[in-house]
Formats: sequence, C-alpha cells, structure tokens
Amino acid sequence: MTLILALDFGGTKLAAAVTQLGSRQWLRYERRLSPTGANATTDLEIMRSLIHNLLQGETPAAIGVSFGGPVDFTTGTVRLSHHVPGWENLPLKQLLENEFGVPASVDNDANVAALGEHRFGAGQGYDSLFYITISTGVGGGWILNGKPWRGNAGMAGEIGHIVVDHAGPVCLCGKRGCVERLASGPYMAQDAREYLLKEPAKLRGDRGRFCRKLVNNNLDLITGKIVSEAAAQGDEFAIIILQSGAWALGMGIGNVANLINPQRFILGGSVTKAGEIWWNTVQKTARETALPEIDFEILPAALGDDAPLWGAVALAELEVRSQNSEFRIQN
Amino acid sequence: MTLILALDFGGTKLAAAVTQLGSRQWLRYERRLSPTGANATTDLEIMRSLIHNLLQGETPAAIGVSFGGPVDFTTGTVRLSHHVPGWENLPLKQLLENEFGVPASVDNDANVAALGEHRFGAGQGYDSLFYITISTGVGGGWILNGKPWRGNAGMAGEIGHIVVDHAGPVCLCGKRGCVERLASGPYMAQDAREYLLKEPAKLRGDRGRFCRKLVNNNLDLITGKIVSEAAAQGDEFAIIILQSGAWALGMGIGNVANLINPQRFILGGSVTKAGEIWWNTVQKTARETALPEIDFEILPAALGDDAPLWGAVALAELEVRSQNSEFRIQN
Repeated sequence: MTLILALDFGGTKLAAAVTQLGSRQWLRYERRLSPTGANATTDLEIMRSLIHNLLQGETPAAIGVSFGGPVDFTTGTVRLSHHVPGWENLPLKQLLENEFGVPASVDNDANVAALGEHRFGAGQGYDSLFYITISTGVGGGWILNGKPWRGNAGMAGEIGHIVVDHAGPVCLCGKRGCVERLASGPYMAQDAREYLLKEPAKLRGDRGRFCRKLVNNNLDLITGKIVSEAAAQGDEFAIIILQSGAWALGMGIGNVANLINPQRFILGGSVTKAGEIWWNTVQKTARETALPEIDFEILPAALGDDAPLWGAVALAELEVRSQNSEFRIQN
Repeated sequence: MTLILALDFGGTKLAAAVTQLGSRQWLRYERRLSPTGANATTDLEIMRSLIHNLLQGETPAAIGVSFGGPVDFTTGTVRLSHHVPGWENLPLKQLLENEFGVPASVDNDANVAALGEHRFGAGQGYDSLFYITISTGVGGGWILNGKPWRGNAGMAGEIGHIVVDHAGPVCLCGKRGCVERLASGPYMAQDAREYLLKEPAKLRGDRGRFCRKLVNNNLDLITGKIVSEAAAQGDEFAIIILQSGAWALGMGIGNVANLINPQRFILGGSVTKAGEIWWNTVQKTARETALPEIDFEILPAALGDDAPLWGAVALAELEVRSQNSEFRIQN
C-alpha cells in the first residue's frame, strides 16, 4: 500500500491526513486550531503529533504540503507567514525530508488549491484555470497546459494586488484600489465600520440598521460575514459595500480573462459564501470587462475546506510519479 | 537546402521573405504597401506575386504567416482584419496549404512577434516573456514555459483591453479606460486634438505651441508621433498626454507582473519610439504597480520592423520540427 501524507499549515488551523495513492478518501484525518500566541516552532510541534497519530508507524511514499503564505517552490522554503511569526526563510521541505526520509513538496495554499481543484474538484478535465481564494486575503493559483504555472520566482497569481481603482482606498501593500483592498473580508468589514462611525447621529439606526443589529451596535464586531448577512437581509449600505468588493473582483477576473483566456475561474474562500448579490455582481462585472469574444466560466470551488489537503495530495502524487518515471529511465 | 517562406499581412503593408532553415539572414526579401481600397483578394494577389518572385520555382519546407488581426491558430482561419475588408473567416492556412502543397502555420502578429523575439531577439534564453506592441492598437503575445501561450480560444494577450481607469474615456470596445484607449498612437492624437480644440482662444499659441507648430495649426494632422515630438521639445501639454498613455501601459504591465510573473516584458510598435519621457513613465509606473518581491525587466524589441517575418520563420520552423519528429516516430 502506497501512503500519501498531506499537510495543511493554515493561518489559524493545522490539518493533516493520509490517503492511499490514487484514492479519493482519507484513511485517517486530523485537524487542530493554532493556539493563541503560536509561532513556527509550536505549529511544527502540533503538526508532528498529528503526523504521529496518522502514520501509526508506517512510512508514506511522499509528503505534500500546503502553506498559508509565500513559498519558494523550487527549494520548498517558506518565505514568511502573514499570521504566525518565526516562519521566515524556514526550509520546510528539507526539514520534512530529513525527518521522515521521503520526498516532500511544499507550495503556497492558492497554488495547492488550484492543483487540488484541477485534479479532484471543479477543474477536472480543464487544461487552463485560475483558482482564486477570497478570504482574509485575496490570492490565486494557475493551471496552464494542465500544469501549475508559478511564474519566474514563484510569485504568479497575485490577483489580490492588481489595481482596479487607482483612486481608491490605500491597501496594506501601499497601493490604492487593489482587489484585496476592496474584496477581502476584513477590508469590507473595515469599510463598513468606518462608514457607520461617520454616519450622522440623526441617521443612525436607519442606514446599516441590520448591520448594527447583528453586532448589537458594537461596530468592532463587524466582519465580512456580518456585512454579507446584513446585505442578504436587505441592508442597502451593506449591499453597496458587498457589491464594491464583488465589483473589484469581477474587474480583476475580466482583466485576467483578456490577458490569459483560461477556461475556468474557480472561486474559494469564506467570502464566496456571501450569497447571490455577491456572485451576480462578480459574474456581471467580469463579463462586462472581458472582450465579448472571450469565453469563460466562473464557478465555486468543489473541495471546500479540504481543498488545501487534497491539493497537497495532488502535489505529493506528482512527486511519486516523477520519481517512478526517473526510476524507469534509470533502469 | 531546406527553404522557409515567411509572410506578413500587416494592416497597411505586405512583406514576404525566404530563408534557409536555421539561418538568420534572408535569402530574398520583398515588401509592398497595400494599395488604397485594398481588400483580402487584392492583398492575396499581391502576396502571390511576391511569393512567386521569392521562390523562383523552388518549394519551401513550410510557410509561416503573421496576420495583423485575430486568428484561430488551431485551424489557421483569420477571424477578421481591423483594416482591410474581406478577411472575415478566411481559412488562410488551408488556402496556402492547398496552393503550395506544404504545411502552413498562421497566427496573429502579436503572438508571432513574441515567438520571433523569443527565438531571435530580446527574449533569447528566457523561459517566460510577454511581448507588447503599442502602435495603432495595443496587443500582446505570451511565451510561457518556452512556448507560445494562446489561451483557450486563442484570445490571450489582450492587454490593450484591460481596464486601468474605470472612470476614464470610452474605448472603441465600449469600456472605459482600457490601456489601448489611453496608450495607442491614434487615441493619444485624438486626445491632443480635442484638448487643443477646447483650449480658450486667449491661451492659443501658448499651451501646445510646439504641437500646433509641427502641424502648421492644422489639428487634423496630429498623430501619436507628433505628440511625442512636441513632448520631446518640451510642450507641457503633449508631455501630459504622452505620460498618461505611458502610465496606462505601466499600470497594465505591473498588473500583468503580479498575475503571471514573467521574466521579461518586450515592447515593440511605433509608440515605443516616443523617447525617454515615455519609457521612464512606463518603467516607473510598472515598478510601483507590481509587488516589491516581483522582479522583471522591460526592454525594447530587438527585431524592429522585421519582427513579424522572423516570428513567421520561427512558427514555420516549429512546424518543420514537429513533422520531422512525427516522421522519426512513424519510422
């Protein structure tokens, strides 16, 4: 039996699972929340104990890893984590290979999810796709000619930081009107909070009524999810914020369609659960931004929260296959 | 001797040349202007006579064709020409193969120029590049993993129609603030003309002084070239127009760098001769728009006016090579 070990270092959670090569079901599966004050060392410790439980003394043929942050894929070195300290330039691939004595592949979560959707999800049978995650941040991963496209330095896919409104609000990256600045959950929440704080007292309770009610008037509690719930209840102001996020993403998608003409756009991440208003605006804006001759589909990811783990399986399977073919060539 | 025949159907000119497989020099070369009132039939007639002169009774191993308009590469069918009538859905590949009895490959000029620069020009030795032509229109061609990337329906590369200023002026395509609307020669000329027409009488002769002088006050004669000459002479208003064109292109390039992370951007077409102000603005804006971690170079095309013909040679060589390898496999 050829075992595959899949690991997912998310920003706030850790998950690991084992499956058989070629199977689509987990043999064993483990998931933990990162503790508050986590760092790379504590995350690795927790992951070690998950792996121990999963492997039960067996040795996998390969390890695939999804990491929630920029990774140099060729060396398997994590550049940094935006959420957990201590990951700077950590050679994760090397560390795992030394510890377990088998080949490991490490890539960032968007690339891994793209691979997972291509192999097991909404991208099966498609030669070109762009997976986009819209969540705390906005990022993307490419499949072109049936294979991951990572760019010259593994930096391709940064749809979160293409500019769609050059006069818009300032993003963490320093530019104005990036897709992430308008479309990510935390930024939509921030815009909602600031808007409601500025609202003149006499209008309070009117505009953003549902939004205020959902957080019991404590504006600090507003999240992207609250904004979309308020929008679904008909809160006009929440609808405006949700629609500008969806508009920004749609502009990004339409521009990408013009540039690369992929068959499918597959959207994952918490913001994609925002409902019909959001999806309709994304679809409409993307269609209007792309040239009429350019066809594409935009659809939700199929693998849900397990996308990084299944993508990690796909990554490890590629490793096993390339080793087998090297073996055949040498022999 | 293995001959390669290269054809270039430009918007206003026709060119053809023959070379030996593997050579970098033309054996024979012909160039004609399209007559006024040209259509597909007259263009094909002129091209036939050029080919006759070039081949002198010999048969080429393959024909490569650059066409100035959208092409379905897989079938080699021209979709249309934006300049010459009668090209709609013309099966150019089939027509040439029937007439000359050898394989022909047809692609649009931007894809062909990208291939030419990759094989013989500023892209030699680079695995990923984006060629951009900035001229009457703005278009692009991809090399990814060392090979042309044409997109799902051959529509990739349309950087001219990505939106960089959603509140900007309306483009021919119906959208606002496309790169082409701001950066192409004719649109820069149009903006200059409209600006000078609106200028209050008392200011005339002051703003746009050099521009007016260059066309002897006949604003209809303003072209993109005139705008860049006036800018080079220090005409503030021409500088503003030239810089907004360069800004739009730079924004486009920076966004593309974030999305695809290619090694090189290679710029060709008449507008790239606009001088230092233009190039500096393109470089600066692209650098500011791309994430700081993303490296790339922007540089001028090396092949000049012969880029489409050399690209057509590269296209035909690929055809010859794939036939030879099929031959080897069959035997």
